[in-house]
Amino acid sequence: MSGARPLAVTQGDPSGIGPEIALAAWEAAQADASLPCFALLADPDLMRRRAAALGKTIEIAECDLQSAPDVFARALPVLPLAARAKGEPGRPDPGDAAATIESMERAVALVFEGAAGAVVTNPIAKDVLYRAGFAHPGHTEFLGELAKRHTGRAALPVMMLWSEELAVVPVTIHVALAEVPRLLTRALIVETGKIVAADMRARFGIATPRLAISGLNPHAGENGAIGREEVDVIAPAVAELVAAGVDAKGPYSADTLFHAAARAKYDAALCMTHDQALIPIKTLAFDRGVNVTLGLPFVRTSPDHGTAFDIAGKGLANPTSLIEALRLAARLALR
Amino acid sequence: MSGARPLAVTQGDPSGIGPEIALAAWEAAQADASLPCFALLADPDLMRRRAAALGKTIEIAECDLQSAPDVFARALPVLPLAARAKGEPGRPDPGDAAATIESMERAVALVFEGAAGAVVTNPIAKDVLYRAGFAHPGHTEFLGELAKRHTGRAALPVMMLWSEELAVVPVTIHVALAEVPRLLTRALIVETGKIVAADMRARFGIATPRLAISGLNPHAGENGAIGREEVDVIAPAVAELVAAGVDAKGPYSADTLFHAAARAKYDAALCMTHDQALIPIKTLAFDRGVNVTLGLPFVRTSPDHGTAFDIAGKGLANPTSLIEALRLAARLALR
Repeated sequence: MSGARPLAVTQGDPSGIGPEIALAAWEAAQADASLPCFALLADPDLMRRRAAALGKTIEIAECDLQSAPDVFARALPVLPLAARAKGEPGRPDPGDAAATIESMERAVALVFEGAAGAVVTNPIAKDVLYRAGFAHPGHTEFLGELAKRHTGRAALPVMMLWSEELAVVPVTIHVALAEVPRLLTRALIVETGKIVAADMRARFGIATPRLAISGLNPHAGENGAIGREEVDVIAPAVAELVAAGVDAKGPYSADTLFHAAARAKYDAALCMTHDQALIPIKTLAFDRGVNVTLGLPFVRTSPDHGTAFDIAGKGLANPTSLIEALRLAARLALR
Repeated sequence: MSGARPLAVTQGDPSGIGPEIALAAWEAAQADASLPCFALLADPDLMRRRAAALGKTIEIAECDLQSAPDVFARALPVLPLAARAKGEPGRPDPGDAAATIESMERAVALVFEGAAGAVVTNPIAKDVLYRAGFAHPGHTEFLGELAKRHTGRAALPVMMLWSEELAVVPVTIHVALAEVPRLLTRALIVETGKIVAADMRARFGIATPRLAISGLNPHAGENGAIGREEVDVIAPAVAELVAAGVDAKGPYSADTLFHAAARAKYDAALCMTHDQALIPIKTLAFDRGVNVTLGLPFVRTSPDHGTAFDIAGKGLANPTSLIEALRLAARLALR
């Protein structure tokens, strides 16, 4: 990885598993030279406390990003935050929100400065930030807002869940199922599809990304017999994407879209609901799924799990998804 | 399989792939003694034409069910229907509906007589039967009606998709997604769960079947933050099932319910939508899934695919799901 810029990894909620999976990912990188160099935007004392509590003798080296590659072989490089974090495991504290937010802001600033290759974010807890006055709907939206601060242009961040086996994009995400038919518009599908196609070309290096679009209803509605959304909304969106030069096909019955032979026919599946997208990737690649945000002017990945307050500080957290997020970020940052 | 009664296999739509997958399953059974003996309720001439068209030299032996076990080692046992079937591949004909329906009626009669161990149905096309005046919503409902003719009692047939890896039951099935929140009632979930638990005990021999119940909304609604159905409908249904002595747990977020470690914790997953149930089983066991109808007073399985008119008669049809349906029917019929 020589020559590649280090990745900027955020602290995430300091009471969650972010700090300990970052420690575990650094340990994994010592044993596996294919893993990329990264630096953590964190409170160094929090990291020292967490390492000690877990019985890990890992040196926490306060440094800047330029020296991180040299430091990485012997210590976990930490770029100290101005805000301190109490970070009691499993006991999230709105008083720690300033550190959580500063970590994200600094990570994004570092990619815009060109010092970091990409941003990898550890999980945050929205409700903890809300109690501290955080005014953004979620993690990804906040990163979109930070991008706008740097570029002056609004971004539509698009969530993709990626694994070697399967890449999926839920067009509607964390909304009640009863709201989906109202929220699912032709414009939303088209805009999402264009961003996915553009970023799979630019970031993943796929010359002509093939998109498979799912239906909303069972059997993709059977030509209107089981729901009209395919006929009225989704098929017109597919046609509009095709007219715009995107290799989009569908709508396909979601149940037969994810076995091995079907997956070989596309590069990403656009799904109409959260579960249509998340069920197959978590069934096939439970620990290895990576959340990658498309539509931003920089590369951002994150592990595909939450803060896991219930197991934080217990040494039980699995770092696999963060490690895969680091790998993917490094790969995408090379372009 | 000596001692076990033969399985009664229906013809299905004679223009679909049913006849040829039946021929292929008989061929497979010649090479694999673990496959059960079956007899086909069909037009023998249709079967001879289809075998000849596919270049197969399979003897079609007209016989009764009692002689089927002796016949099976050298010929495909066919119990001739009174109605003839034209059965032009890929060209379904309402004129063949009488044979399709007679085949189902005779198969059910044979299990009630005790001559057949179970019913295995080949795919039918509802719209072809509708045009011939068929007045039942579908295949399974018709079998429920046939059961009522024999027993005098109404049955609630429940569709389970079964494979070695995973068994799933969609609580709502072929309905538009927008209708699901209205159709999903506590009573429906409870009644379905009781039938699944009873039949997994009686038919599958699982002393205390463990049922995992999915949520409807993303992340099972996050305690009401993303939809109320979990709080208002599903959790009360789970509590009612538990009070009735069923080992039911949930509601669980559907996306994390189907990886290997999660699947080890239950015997069947009850899912709120078609896609929640069908996506994981078709992702994990695309060709091997079997449709088994619970809640009937006899064992009925079927392949988990349709008539496939587009490939009928071309020798392309994969008999795996029918073969697995035969295996499961024989296994369940032993109890």
